[in-house]
Amino acid sequence: MSFSPLIQDLIDAFRVLPGVGPKTAQRMAFHLLERDRHGASTLATALTVAAEKVGHCSCCRTLSENELCSICADNSRDESQICVLESPVDMLAIEQTGGFNGGYFVLMGHLSPIDGIGPDDLGLDLLFKRLESGAVKEMILATNPTVEGEATAHFIAEQIKHLDIRVTRIAHGVPVGGELEYVDGGTLAHAMAGRRSMN
Amino acid sequence: MSFSPLIQDLIDAFRVLPGVGPKTAQRMAFHLLERDRHGASTLATALTVAAEKVGHCSCCRTLSENELCSICADNSRDESQICVLESPVDMLAIEQTGGFNGGYFVLMGHLSPIDGIGPDDLGLDLLFKRLESGAVKEMILATNPTVEGEATAHFIAEQIKHLDIRVTRIAHGVPVGGELEYVDGGTLAHAMAGRRSMN
Repeated sequence: MSFSPLIQDLIDAFRVLPGVGPKTAQRMAFHLLERDRHGASTLATALTVAAEKVGHCSCCRTLSENELCSICADNSRDESQICVLESPVDMLAIEQTGGFNGGYFVLMGHLSPIDGIGPDDLGLDLLFKRLESGAVKEMILATNPTVEGEATAHFIAEQIKHLDIRVTRIAHGVPVGGELEYVDGGTLAHAMAGRRSMN
Repeated sequence: MSFSPLIQDLIDAFRVLPGVGPKTAQRMAFHLLERDRHGASTLATALTVAAEKVGHCSCCRTLSENELCSICADNSRDESQICVLESPVDMLAIEQTGGFNGGYFVLMGHLSPIDGIGPDDLGLDLLFKRLESGAVKEMILATNPTVEGEATAHFIAEQIKHLDIRVTRIAHGVPVGGELEYVDGGTLAHAMAGRRSMN
C-alpha cells in the first residue's frame, strides 16, 4: 500500500528541502493536509512569488527583489570598506553584530573546481570592477574558515595585489565563551599563532 | 537589517511546517532561492494541488483524492474486520506489516475535550453506521497507547456494547528486540498483566 498519488507527490516535493528525509517529508505533508491547509496555500504562494521575483542585487550580489538591496541603497554606509562573504545569511550575521558599517559583496558560494565553480560563477569581475573604481580602501575577506573558504580568500587577495587596497582576513581563534578544553587543535594552533599583545 | 520582504515572507511561511523554527526556515528559504528554484516551483505546485484536491475517503475517512481510498475500493479485503486508527500514517504502518487484510477507519485525531474535539469531529457516527450494517464481526481498536488514545478506545467500545461485535485492543507490552532494562515501568506492568500462556 502507498499513499494516493497527490499525497505521494507532495511528500516527494518536500524532499527538496535541506535535511528533510522521507519520514520528515511525510510528517510535513500530513500535518498540512490534516491540520493546516491555509498554511499550505500561504507557503505555496510565498514559494511561487519568491522563486519568480527574487533576484540578485546588481551591486553586491545578495538575494533581493529590488535592483539594489537595502544596504547598497543606503547612502549612510561607509564606501571605503567592503566585506566579502559566501552567502546572504553571513551578511545578516555580520549586520546583527552591529559593528560594521561598510558595504558587502556576496560571492554566493566558494571556489570549488570539483563542482565546476570558478571565478566567473562567484561574480569576481563585478567585485574587481568595484575595487578598481577607487572608493574602496579596505577589503575584509570573511569567507568561511573552511578549506574552500580559505582558498577563495587567498585567490581573491592574489588577484588584486596590484591595487592599493588593504586586504584583511577575519581572525581565527577560540570562540568567545568557549572552553579551551573543547576547542579543536586546528583552531587552537591558529589562536596561538595569531596571539595579540596585551600591553 | 532584515531580509527583503519577499524573502522574509518565505521564511515566515516555512514556519507552518512541524518542527521548523526560525533558523531552519531561513536555511530552507535560502537553499531553495540559491540552489533549487525548480524544486521550489515543484513544491509550490504540489502544495496547491494537494491542498485543493485531497479530501477524505467517504468510507474510512483517510486522506484521499478519490471518493474511496485504494483500500476501501479493494474488493479483496476482508469486510468482517475493521481496524480503528488515529491517523492515515498509522494505516500505512499497519499495511506495511502485511499481516492485516481487513478494512480501516481513521478517526483523524483522538477525543480531547480540552481542545474541543468531541465524537462528532472523529466521524464516529460514520463508524457506528458502518458497524450497524452487520458486515463487521470484529473491531480492532488501534488508537495510540497514550492517555487520549486509551480514552478514545474506551469511549468507542462503550458506545457499541449493544451490538454483537467483538471489540479488541492492540496488545501493550515490551517492544520486540528491546531490552527489558530500558523499558519504562508502565509498559512493563502492562506486559506482566497481559502475559500469555506458552504451553
